[in-house]
Amino acid sequence: MLTPDLLHASLTDPLLDVMNFLNEIALRFPEAISFAPGRPNEKFYDSRQIATYLDAYQRYLREERGLSEAKITSLLFQYGRTNGHIGELLARMLEKDEGIRVAPESIVVTVGCQEGMFLSLRALFSQPEDVLLVGMPCYIGITGAARLLDIAVAPVPEREDGLDLDALEAKVLALRAEGKRPRALYLVADFANPSGRSLPEASRQRLLDLAAREQFLILEDNPYGFFSREGSRKPTLKAMDTRQQVIYLGSFSKSAFPGLRLGYAVVDQRVTGTDGKTHLLADEFSKIKSLLTVNTSSLCQAIVGGMLVLNDGGLLEANQEAIRFYKNNMDATLQALARSFPRSEAWARDVTWNVPDGGFFLVMKLPIEVDEALLEESARDFQVLWTPMRYFYLGEGGEHELRLSCSYLTPEQIDVGISRLARHLQKAVTERQSARRALAG
Amino acid sequence: MLTPDLLHASLTDPLLDVMNFLNEIALRFPEAISFAPGRPNEKFYDSRQIATYLDAYQRYLREERGLSEAKITSLLFQYGRTNGHIGELLARMLEKDEGIRVAPESIVVTVGCQEGMFLSLRALFSQPEDVLLVGMPCYIGITGAARLLDIAVAPVPEREDGLDLDALEAKVLALRAEGKRPRALYLVADFANPSGRSLPEASRQRLLDLAAREQFLILEDNPYGFFSREGSRKPTLKAMDTRQQVIYLGSFSKSAFPGLRLGYAVVDQRVTGTDGKTHLLADEFSKIKSLLTVNTSSLCQAIVGGMLVLNDGGLLEANQEAIRFYKNNMDATLQALARSFPRSEAWARDVTWNVPDGGFFLVMKLPIEVDEALLEESARDFQVLWTPMRYFYLGEGGEHELRLSCSYLTPEQIDVGISRLARHLQKAVTERQSARRALAG
Repeated sequence: MLTPDLLHASLTDPLLDVMNFLNEIALRFPEAISFAPGRPNEKFYDSRQIATYLDAYQRYLREERGLSEAKITSLLFQYGRTNGHIGELLARMLEKDEGIRVAPESIVVTVGCQEGMFLSLRALFSQPEDVLLVGMPCYIGITGAARLLDIAVAPVPEREDGLDLDALEAKVLALRAEGKRPRALYLVADFANPSGRSLPEASRQRLLDLAAREQFLILEDNPYGFFSREGSRKPTLKAMDTRQQVIYLGSFSKSAFPGLRLGYAVVDQRVTGTDGKTHLLADEFSKIKSLLTVNTSSLCQAIVGGMLVLNDGGLLEANQEAIRFYKNNMDATLQALARSFPRSEAWARDVTWNVPDGGFFLVMKLPIEVDEALLEESARDFQVLWTPMRYFYLGEGGEHELRLSCSYLTPEQIDVGISRLARHLQKAVTERQSARRALAG
Repeated sequence: MLTPDLLHASLTDPLLDVMNFLNEIALRFPEAISFAPGRPNEKFYDSRQIATYLDAYQRYLREERGLSEAKITSLLFQYGRTNGHIGELLARMLEKDEGIRVAPESIVVTVGCQEGMFLSLRALFSQPEDVLLVGMPCYIGITGAARLLDIAVAPVPEREDGLDLDALEAKVLALRAEGKRPRALYLVADFANPSGRSLPEASRQRLLDLAAREQFLILEDNPYGFFSREGSRKPTLKAMDTRQQVIYLGSFSKSAFPGLRLGYAVVDQRVTGTDGKTHLLADEFSKIKSLLTVNTSSLCQAIVGGMLVLNDGGLLEANQEAIRFYKNNMDATLQALARSFPRSEAWARDVTWNVPDGGFFLVMKLPIEVDEALLEESARDFQVLWTPMRYFYLGEGGEHELRLSCSYLTPEQIDVGISRLARHLQKAVTERQSARRALAG
């Protein structure tokens, strides 16, 4: 029998139990309307597409790359190059969809974006004094991965208009004064998970300048960038990056589908070897990846390769229908919230929410505490699920907030779900506020 | 510009550069006959199989499991359960093919066996005094993964008949006396990479007893177990494991194909939580996996699911042709060696090799040093590649040995390749021995 002291300390960290709790409550209430999962909608998937994509990629290899049938079989079925076999197609896609110009050799194909985060952390963090900077609230994938590697994390607050750059600068200087090394900042600049916020364009240049001056790298994670709701898309930090300050982490889970487990990291930083020669940091990622997953499924790479070949090299155009769908869903959510939480009613007066420019998520602030008991009540008595924001904070924060994700539902489900949420919160706010008044009286 | 001191120490470890050197020499001499790669042969692959397997799995989900089309689409395309969706099929396969009886919940589907190793190491190693035991010579995948996590490794010598259990016991006692905690032993019990050796059946029970007594776990990695050449297959350690001492690491890279990047870990150990309740160690693996790769490609799982459904639940029968092929290749290699290195000739007298019962690998011992210069000469002047055994040792060892892998070639290529190897070694042995005599004289 094993006891906790025999296992890695991360496994007794409550941070790693959060996902379990959320999964478990979703399983217990399968009929609930769920604003919890940040997953893409399945209406765009059809299993007959798989063969079409595979055929298209094989045709491309045969006709455009001149490969023999034997070589094509090898590429699809065999162990492959650690950093992947679709680097050239990805470089073309990045230029077309994002205006990012990088050499194919600097691209590492990963098992989803999550592996890209893990590779980045393992490569860049070597000493106990090395610190990872993250905006607060923050996606659990990165803080959890840091926990697995015993990497210290320093939170920096987000404001309504994205990461607080003054607080970031102060934090970096304070860390240096303590003898720490802030090595990298993790950031979702566009439609962040969980907050839905984006970094204004002017702040992006300031952040790049700060990173250059203070010698830290930026891990830019961009799973939602396609899905803007209002206004034009902002340039990614990587597109503005003239000094190789940014490691760009991409995902095909939203632009293609999650079952591929396919992502990539753009790692064009240069490293001076012990022999004085320089090479790409991507080559160091390759060494680590060979010991984590060997390489990313060649077959899954071929499927994305086929999608790219069939869509003139990019995925933004191919995602127009999905972009409209998620925009409609976010609009529906915002309209339903405005309808169901009227300012004119006392219980709803202090219920607020942000209005994201895009993405899958928004955050509501409540005048009562958002805890597991409230979620349990919401699921059991009102058949509606969401995510407490508390989970996305290290230390204090988020006690009065919840996250709504609107990607996975239909507009009709959203309407019903927000009505249920309003009925629950009307009850809960009224009850808890009168309980508080009774206590105070 | 990054410098090595800014990166994790593993990245400047020569261990992690070995693969680069081997890949690079293979790229420089693409026409060479290569006994280097331990990869399966591609003659068994056909891209039209993919659709057949996917169809079969969908039919199984529809007809045997009663899932709706919407649920099937979700299972194939969406994010999935961290530990995978084919656990029941895998439990049935393990019982049928290996006589291993485990509950589906104890199976973690992994991104190849490599991820299973990494998960095992991260879960089980928590303190600086924790030590991983490995047989010497050893597969680089496990020693490299340990390096990534700064885990100390203690080597135990292999003998001609597999791991030296006396040396293992002495090592465990010595480590405990130093205040260390030997937490686990990594082992390929059947047709090991690189040595080709297997652990005799009697030693297996003794090893299990030793592990139980000395409280360490066994990480049994079994990629080659199907491919026996002579005699009947031995029971795996896991099939003999009545006390949950063994974490069993499986791979579909040889029994299906590597491009899937699909493996699994059987983790039926129990853990007592801080609340006193017990749960499976597989659930702890799930927490770690969610932060490494989230889950294994649902699509790749579905392909293996289809293979299993179409083959009455097992893969051993479906691999009979492959088993014969690898047996023939090993026979061809052994016959060619006997023919090309006749004992009657002086230069060949001290060239020896082992005779494995199966698998992909054998080891040759030479009377001269096997270094990178010899490999370079072999590739350049004789167009034949192999792997220096030196790379598989921590510390000293393997200086006069090379590994031959016979899985990737045809019997005809094997004949030509071994002839070339003999011509090279005749020259090299003669030259180096006369140089040595000249120096001595």
